[in-house]
Amino acid sequence: MAVNLEQPGVLLPVAGVRLSAVNAGIRYKGRNDMVLVELAEGSQCAGVFTRNRFCAAPVQVSREHLAQGKVRYWLINAGNANAGTGEPGMQAARQSCAGLAALAGCEAGAVLPFSTGVIGVQLPVEKLHTAFPPALAALDENHWLEAARGIMTTDTLPKAISRQVTLPGGTVTLTGIAKGSGMIHPDMATMLGFVATDAQVEAALLQQLLSEVADETFNAITVDGDTSTNDSLVLAATGASGVRVGAAERDAFREALRAVCSFLAQAIVRDGEGATKFISIHVHEARDKAEARKVGQTVALSPLVKTAMFASDPNWGRILAAIGRSPVDDLDVAHISIRLGDTLLIEAGEPAASYREEMGQQEMKKAEIDVHVRLGRGEASATVWTCDFSYEYVRINAEYRS
Amino acid sequence: MAVNLEQPGVLLPVAGVRLSAVNAGIRYKGRNDMVLVELAEGSQCAGVFTRNRFCAAPVQVSREHLAQGKVRYWLINAGNANAGTGEPGMQAARQSCAGLAALAGCEAGAVLPFSTGVIGVQLPVEKLHTAFPPALAALDENHWLEAARGIMTTDTLPKAISRQVTLPGGTVTLTGIAKGSGMIHPDMATMLGFVATDAQVEAALLQQLLSEVADETFNAITVDGDTSTNDSLVLAATGASGVRVGAAERDAFREALRAVCSFLAQAIVRDGEGATKFISIHVHEARDKAEARKVGQTVALSPLVKTAMFASDPNWGRILAAIGRSPVDDLDVAHISIRLGDTLLIEAGEPAASYREEMGQQEMKKAEIDVHVRLGRGEASATVWTCDFSYEYVRINAEYRS
Repeated sequence: MAVNLEQPGVLLPVAGVRLSAVNAGIRYKGRNDMVLVELAEGSQCAGVFTRNRFCAAPVQVSREHLAQGKVRYWLINAGNANAGTGEPGMQAARQSCAGLAALAGCEAGAVLPFSTGVIGVQLPVEKLHTAFPPALAALDENHWLEAARGIMTTDTLPKAISRQVTLPGGTVTLTGIAKGSGMIHPDMATMLGFVATDAQVEAALLQQLLSEVADETFNAITVDGDTSTNDSLVLAATGASGVRVGAAERDAFREALRAVCSFLAQAIVRDGEGATKFISIHVHEARDKAEARKVGQTVALSPLVKTAMFASDPNWGRILAAIGRSPVDDLDVAHISIRLGDTLLIEAGEPAASYREEMGQQEMKKAEIDVHVRLGRGEASATVWTCDFSYEYVRINAEYRS
Repeated sequence: MAVNLEQPGVLLPVAGVRLSAVNAGIRYKGRNDMVLVELAEGSQCAGVFTRNRFCAAPVQVSREHLAQGKVRYWLINAGNANAGTGEPGMQAARQSCAGLAALAGCEAGAVLPFSTGVIGVQLPVEKLHTAFPPALAALDENHWLEAARGIMTTDTLPKAISRQVTLPGGTVTLTGIAKGSGMIHPDMATMLGFVATDAQVEAALLQQLLSEVADETFNAITVDGDTSTNDSLVLAATGASGVRVGAAERDAFREALRAVCSFLAQAIVRDGEGATKFISIHVHEARDKAEARKVGQTVALSPLVKTAMFASDPNWGRILAAIGRSPVDDLDVAHISIRLGDTLLIEAGEPAASYREEMGQQEMKKAEIDVHVRLGRGEASATVWTCDFSYEYVRINAEYRS
């Protein structure tokens, strides 16, 4: 059902990173549901996390441990979000870190925990403990695909990609995996993203690059507007290639990181719950980026726009109405133009004389739809990626918990 | 399909108001689609209109004419929204006012036009002109129900109510009608509300009361977050009862007006597209009303909350996640409590020890569901009314235009 998304291509190992995926029996039978990622000593790590105030216990612990600056393990479980679990949930997250650390010979603060799955159910931390020895034994630098599969909840396809970029000091590799954001029933919450590189990057620069790139990629996607309690994206730089990323290499490395994150973020939308279309809302000529994004998100989140997209219906009145109610000051419709693909719908606030229903129909039939909005009041742009709203979305999200 | 909504009860005539409904053939066959409301000379009129920047031509003309302070007619058509129609649409709206005024012997500025229906199609103004003579001939003070039916688009039931209130100077009557906000395909946009009273109220007070009450009623409902291009609510006071509403009578009259608007606003939600549940989100202990409403709307608009309600699933993690991402500063989850009906879910940020799945299930089975959220940071409250999100919503909004 995913829109133009296939099984991952070749995944390159990243020197200094080993991974394993095992079945801890947290929720799923017959598949792996716990993933362990080991980072070589001296690796730098950066992270961005959900802004939801009801953030999950593992998010709170990961933030805290990340700040200590000595990350050696990412511990991920699927099937249980450890969110809405109160103080016992915090203890479970801490115990899982401590338990792994004891076996791996590091400090508990060197482990970042991540959970995705049901909200409001206590994490069976003893099942994780039982799975730690086999997980540590299975660590291998070629297990990226297994890891991508092991973190899936209701994703229909694993999401993973590699990129290489040649810098003055040599070639570095970036490999990343992610899982989808559908808060599918029974609340398989969470977007999770894990990216690693063998480049050598200082912690401050690494965090800066990740924040910037996340803003253009993971923060530009929306399936249903529901920010999960567990969303997390982390980036590790092992330095194992010996190739340094400084001021001179910043742009080239940033572009490779952006390509990896852009692919993973788009993959989440393409595999969105019930998605049949991949929709890009491009907003141009805004006063600033924030305003461009607000307009894009208002259009992207409109259930009326999303159902029209599902129906392949060139119902441009809905796009126009969504732009008109965007939370942006002093928007003057007389300066707004709207295009659907190459077809002009509205020019300077008036219906385009050239428009014919067949032209709109042609654009809407496509599996990938581009909406271009020009606000005519500045030079900033932003793009928001989303998917359509189908019967399947309601079905998936309305099914009873079994 | 409407949730606890029935045919209107007894509708009382309002002295000084005559109405008619005729078939102008704008879109519908075999039913009336044009409504005319005549207000006695000297009536005062107040209005609140959509904040959508792409507001329809009739909204622009109504605002302009209302400001002239001499309203005698409300002219309403169903089947065509006259929105997204550019300059020709403005001309059509003006021509309809001028045409009616010429026949009725008043100024064009005394006519407020209202349109609801398809966006982006030019209004066949000549069809309105043809219908003016029979509409004027049919004016009658007992035609409120016919008027409520004549303004319907995809509403499944007419929405109308009367209230009387006894003030020191005597009894006054309020009767109101409304139509639903579902921007159903092909874009039957718009919430329209028309309320009249025979009380004698000064223009400034009338506008103040309408604005206040609209804020607590029509602005407290949301079906899908899509503010239409045509939303309008007007209130006329003919003064024909001779009973004055001044400072002493303000509160009693306001309460009757609030009851009328509350019924009509709730009726729109109860008859929302595909609605199977009527949901009230009550937010308490907020710093101010605006913040209480933001939290309420975030919960009310969450597709995940709405699909869980449809499934009668006590999936409280979704409510919690929606509160957590509300656009409110410094929200501290440690002070938040959440109840579903009488069942405590979260107390001071922690899962309630008393909660059992069966208790939540019991609450969610109801056709009317109350969610209570305490933010623990102030004394302001707000309530938001919404409906659930069903297969039927997607079906209705995804159907092709025929």
